[in-house]
Amino acid sequence: MSQPKNPTAAIIVIGDEILSGRTKDKNIGWLAEKLRAQGIQLVEARVIADNRQVIIDTVKTLSAAYDLVFTSGGIGPTHDDITTEAVAAAFDVPVIRHPEAERRLVAHYENTDLEFNAARQKMADIPATATLIDNPLSAAPGFILGNVHVLPGVPAILQAMFEGVCSSLPGGVVMTRITVQCGTGEGNIATILATVQSRYEGVSIGSYPWFKPGQFGTAVVVSGLDQTATASAAKEVESEVRLFGADAQIVEAGGTPLS
Amino acid sequence: MSQPKNPTAAIIVIGDEILSGRTKDKNIGWLAEKLRAQGIQLVEARVIADNRQVIIDTVKTLSAAYDLVFTSGGIGPTHDDITTEAVAAAFDVPVIRHPEAERRLVAHYENTDLEFNAARQKMADIPATATLIDNPLSAAPGFILGNVHVLPGVPAILQAMFEGVCSSLPGGVVMTRITVQCGTGEGNIATILATVQSRYEGVSIGSYPWFKPGQFGTAVVVSGLDQTATASAAKEVESEVRLFGADAQIVEAGGTPLS
Repeated sequence: MSQPKNPTAAIIVIGDEILSGRTKDKNIGWLAEKLRAQGIQLVEARVIADNRQVIIDTVKTLSAAYDLVFTSGGIGPTHDDITTEAVAAAFDVPVIRHPEAERRLVAHYENTDLEFNAARQKMADIPATATLIDNPLSAAPGFILGNVHVLPGVPAILQAMFEGVCSSLPGGVVMTRITVQCGTGEGNIATILATVQSRYEGVSIGSYPWFKPGQFGTAVVVSGLDQTATASAAKEVESEVRLFGADAQIVEAGGTPLS
Repeated sequence: MSQPKNPTAAIIVIGDEILSGRTKDKNIGWLAEKLRAQGIQLVEARVIADNRQVIIDTVKTLSAAYDLVFTSGGIGPTHDDITTEAVAAAFDVPVIRHPEAERRLVAHYENTDLEFNAARQKMADIPATATLIDNPLSAAPGFILGNVHVLPGVPAILQAMFEGVCSSLPGGVVMTRITVQCGTGEGNIATILATVQSRYEGVSIGSYPWFKPGQFGTAVVVSGLDQTATASAAKEVESEVRLFGADAQIVEAGGTPLS
C-alpha cells in the first residue's frame, strides 16, 4: 500500500518574550495537537525575534517549503507588533486599511469605553490580498496570505481564532498513534524496538523513558498513517516485551487502556 | 556608549514527540531563562523531527550562524536516538566508543540490576573530538562538539547537565529587564510606548496585554544591556502612563515591586 501524503505545516512563533524566557510558549504544543487531529503533518516549528527582516526571511523560507504556515504573535496595536507588515513584505503585497476589518473594530470598540484611536486602527491594516480570520474574542482579525495563517500570540485568542479556520484547512489522514506502556528501561527493549521498526517501513516507533519516585518505565509510541500496520506493529512490541519478561500494555494516546 | 556584544545562541529541540503534540516542550523556556541570566542572547529556537539529514542541515546552519548551539533530545539507547551520529556527521567527525564515557556507564550499571547491554553501550558512542558533558543523574554523557552542546530531551536530566556546563560558557552582560505594570489596555498607551522607544536606541520596549476575569492591563517590558538607559526608559514609561491617567508601577522581572 502506498503511503498517503498528508499536507505539511510549519509554525513560526514571533516574540522576543519567548526568547528571553519571560513568557513560556504554549502555542506550539497546542497547535501541534490540533494539526495532528486534522491529518496535517507539522514538520518544524521556529521561535524567532521581533525583527522585520528575520520575519520576512523565515516566512519566505517556510511558506515555500511547506503546504501551510501558522504564525503567532506581533499583530497588536503597539510599535513592537510588526508581523502584519513583515508578512505582507514577504509576499510583496501592500498593506491597506481594510474596510471589513475596520468595520469590525469600530463595532467592537463602540461597545467598550475604549477609544478606537490611531494605535487600535493599526489593527485594521491588513495585506491587500489577504483573507480575514475572525477573532470572536477581541475583534482584531488575523489573516491568511498565500499559505500563511497569521494569528495572535495570546493563547486564548489564538485558540479561538484557529478553531474558526480549522474546518477550512486541507485535511489529511489522521495518524494512528498507539502507546505501549512498558514496565522496564528503554535500554532493555531497544533491540526489540529496532527489530519491530525494521519490519514496518511506514510506521514510526518512538521510545520515551519516564521516571517517578521508585518507578520507571518506557512509553513506546507507535504511529503511522496506515492504521492496520500501526496496530500490528504495536501488538508485536507488546507481545515481544512480554516475552522478554517485562510488563507491557497497549494504551491509547490519552493513556486509557483499549478494551 | 557603544553596545556591548553578547554571545549569541540557538536551541534545536529534536523530537517527533514534540511535533506530534504528544509531549509539550519545556526545554526552550527553561534554557531561555538560563541563557539570559548568563548574558547570552538566544536568537532563535527550532523544533525539528528525528530525521538524520534535517538534524545535520540544521546543526550546520545554526552552528555557523551563532556562537553557541544547544540541542535537546535523541541521545538515548534506542534506534530513534540519532542525534549523536547526525551531529558528528555535521562536523565530519567519526563516532568512537569513548573510553571515559564507557567507564562511567559501566560504573553506573554495576550499581543497578540493569544489564550494560549493546543498546546501552551505544550511549558510550561519542564523536572522536568531542568533550563530554557530565550527567549526574543517569551517567550517559552529553558532549560538546565545536560550538554545539548536545543534551538529552528529558527536562530533569537536561537541567542537571546544563547546570554543570553553565559556568564554562562564555558570559556576557546580563540584560536588565524591568516590567512596568499598567492598568490600561495596550491600545491606550501605544503612542507613549512608541515615543519612549524612539528616544532609546539600545533599549527594547515590549508590550504584553493580559486579561483576568473583570480585569485587564498591559505588562510593558523594558530591556537593554545598558542598565542606566533601561531604568530611565522604564521610569519614563511609568510617569507618562500616569500622566495619561492610568495606573502604572515599575516591578521587577519576577513581579516583585521595587522598594
